[in-house]
Amino acid sequence: MASEYGGMWKSLGMDLGAHDQLLAVLGQGYTDVFLSQANRPKGMDYFNFVMSEVHGLRIKEMLEAREQGEKIVGSYCVFVPEEIVRAAGATLVGLCSGADFAMEEVERVLPRNTCALIKSSFGFKLGKVCPYLESADMIVGENTCDGKKKSYEELNKLVSNLYVMDLPQTKSENARALLKAEFVRFARAVEELTGNPITVESLKKGIAITNAKRQAMHRLEALRKADPEPISGLDALLASQVSFYDAPVRFTESVNALCDELEERIKDNVAVFPEKTPRILMSGCPMAVPNWKLPWIVESSGAVIVGEESCVGERGLRNLTDDSGQDVESLMEAIVDRYFKIDCAIFTPNEDRADHIVQMAKDYKADGVIQYALNFCQPYQIEAMGLESRMEKEGIPMLRIETDYSPEDAEQLKTRVEAFVEMIG
Amino acid sequence: MASEYGGMWKSLGMDLGAHDQLLAVLGQGYTDVFLSQANRPKGMDYFNFVMSEVHGLRIKEMLEAREQGEKIVGSYCVFVPEEIVRAAGATLVGLCSGADFAMEEVERVLPRNTCALIKSSFGFKLGKVCPYLESADMIVGENTCDGKKKSYEELNKLVSNLYVMDLPQTKSENARALLKAEFVRFARAVEELTGNPITVESLKKGIAITNAKRQAMHRLEALRKADPEPISGLDALLASQVSFYDAPVRFTESVNALCDELEERIKDNVAVFPEKTPRILMSGCPMAVPNWKLPWIVESSGAVIVGEESCVGERGLRNLTDDSGQDVESLMEAIVDRYFKIDCAIFTPNEDRADHIVQMAKDYKADGVIQYALNFCQPYQIEAMGLESRMEKEGIPMLRIETDYSPEDAEQLKTRVEAFVEMIG
Ligand code: SF4
Ligand code: SF4
Ligand code: SF4
Ligand code: SF4
Repeated sequence: MASEYGGMWKSLGMDLGAHDQLLAVLGQGYTDVFLSQANRPKGMDYFNFVMSEVHGLRIKEMLEAREQGEKIVGSYCVFVPEEIVRAAGATLVGLCSGADFAMEEVERVLPRNTCALIKSSFGFKLGKVCPYLESADMIVGENTCDGKKKSYEELNKLVSNLYVMDLPQTKSENARALLKAEFVRFARAVEELTGNPITVESLKKGIAITNAKRQAMHRLEALRKADPEPISGLDALLASQVSFYDAPVRFTESVNALCDELEERIKDNVAVFPEKTPRILMSGCPMAVPNWKLPWIVESSGAVIVGEESCVGERGLRNLTDDSGQDVESLMEAIVDRYFKIDCAIFTPNEDRADHIVQMAKDYKADGVIQYALNFCQPYQIEAMGLESRMEKEGIPMLRIETDYSPEDAEQLKTRVEAFVEMIG
Repeated sequence: MASEYGGMWKSLGMDLGAHDQLLAVLGQGYTDVFLSQANRPKGMDYFNFVMSEVHGLRIKEMLEAREQGEKIVGSYCVFVPEEIVRAAGATLVGLCSGADFAMEEVERVLPRNTCALIKSSFGFKLGKVCPYLESADMIVGENTCDGKKKSYEELNKLVSNLYVMDLPQTKSENARALLKAEFVRFARAVEELTGNPITVESLKKGIAITNAKRQAMHRLEALRKADPEPISGLDALLASQVSFYDAPVRFTESVNALCDELEERIKDNVAVFPEKTPRILMSGCPMAVPNWKLPWIVESSGAVIVGEESCVGERGLRNLTDDSGQDVESLMEAIVDRYFKIDCAIFTPNEDRADHIVQMAKDYKADGVIQYALNFCQPYQIEAMGLESRMEKEGIPMLRIETDYSPEDAEQLKTRVEAFVEMIG
């Protein structure tokens, strides 16, 4: 790949040597975790291809579109309203990263006690290895957890195009008003970036593109309720992860094609795991590419993951945006309504999330929940303590995991996961 | 003390055995840290007495006043507007705690990776050893850092009288509107608690009481600018700490009496430390009673602490509330104005704080700054990273310390502090 795209990466100011190392690790990880799986649906070929070209063809495509005026907006959170970005004719990409990189340099600007997601994002910046970050015309940060909120102050010293969106911490009326005001301010900023005014037509189009993507993913989620499972949890997670990078319309088609195949599989009783494989619902912090450690451990411990209660999963995809409004104002209200329902642990209280986990465990016929939090992620870790008693009350077995991106605890995690799977099996 | 107040503590539902243990540790710590100091001002006798009776006479007094209808409001943050509490005829006490207690029980409800301040507050609740917490009619939590914001959800399961105040994360116009709305909502809640309406007269009285306390402390701060220092940093910190518990009018008188004495001392060139003792500005997380570890280490390492950039210190005391308004609305606006200036690290960005540290270092003729953050306190830890480069630019030596309440790292801290003091001396 290096020979073909080296010039492009260089023009983005990337560090080619470091990037080669990253690609090698990523490629090996992908081979070990994904390509080694048995009984994969044919529809996953598309996602294999996307992943093999995630720093290559996709970036080339985006840069070519940029030549035609399509701006690139990068984001670290599912609160950044994709509808508005698309309405202004820009493309939205996720910048969260799932691998440790340049950790020594990172710990010179951030405390060691920062979650892996944040450290990783800084590592990709400091190590100059993320073509998405380097090609973004606008980087959107948001005031969510303390770690992100405060580290954007440091990121602001490393990039020139950071835009910070304020977010509420409760679900009160005042809180909704703040979200609305911030979405309106963001719409102005994106209009300014692109030079494209946001109109009823463009907003409707933005909503349609984004809703279609969500609907395809809802279809995939629904098919995972089947027992036995027609697709592995890892492959389904990959689709969610790719949704943050891929061209949305093509992505939607590919997910729908995959779903067609899965429907056939269910009819023909073709499964990826033997019948009676214990079914796990994953819940907690988002898992960015290539953070596959825990799902891989779970699915190589005799269990199948049937759903993700996560921002890379249902928390990020739940609910469509109502497109029936006939003016910009009512469409903006509909967008606010949709995002205001996101049950991220940064909100207090956040009982909706606990309810959703219970509901999902039932809907997906999960035998147990693995609650996953990154080390030093206080919002999800503290919620996990409360969830433990809630799940006990509901009679749903739950395993609480805290980890990071390093492979060091893999053995220990595997032991704990295997014991849990045995218990619920 | 146990014999005299045992009945009172029992009536509050406290665990007398555990409480005896706590008092023994507290008493010993106070003797070692405070009573062992040389050249203490006579005016500190009052504070010695208050501390010796902090769980005794002061509680008795508060409970007696409660018999006459004076409600008790407990708080964990200097954002809780004291003027409003006093206006409604209630008394305000700080609930933050500075010692580990019942840690095993705490780690059953909160993650291990939670800051010592929060864990300690939970430990005092779970161990039933805090008479302030147990006698509070209303406990006010606030959405500040992730740790506090999310742990109030757990505290809410342990107490029946928790009121949570939402706070903004920025200093925007929307943010100020939120603070205003929350102060108005809080005023209603306190009115309801006490049955006393908040009027122009009562608000003016509340402002007067609170401002007088601050003015006395400003006087004390100003006297600490003298070289040599007429009072130790530990004693001055103690006055700040006591301000969270004591009856405000008596406290104000006692601080003013102390200041009269310090003025004499300065005139007579009476000092607590030899001339040319290196002068340290402490900066960072609040230090609640009996968290004296680091200041003690500093002042027993040949340095003197000349100021505290902390919520138990100038960040909490800076700025008076304008009392010139002639109606409730304008007085409330003045209160919001005063609190909105607090430069806590939960805000983003928070450049005011860096500016204040630089200004304080100059005003107090500090030879260096010790930036102190509790382990797992992301807001202050991340700011500390940014402060490091700012202080370098300003040519102000800075030492960055991360610690907790345990004595385990004392030796190691002492080595680092001594090296720093030697460097700046
Ligand atoms: S977990 Fe919260 S902060 Fe993180 S992406 Fe999701 S909504 Fe945003
Ligand atoms: S995993 Fe937790 S700490 Fe890390 S960015 Fe997300 S919410 Fe913040
Ligand atoms: S440091 Fe911040 S959260 Fe803590 S008491 Fe001060 S203002 Fe409140
Ligand atoms: S010290 Fe830091 S983490 Fe602890 S309560 Fe205060 S702001 Fe929160």
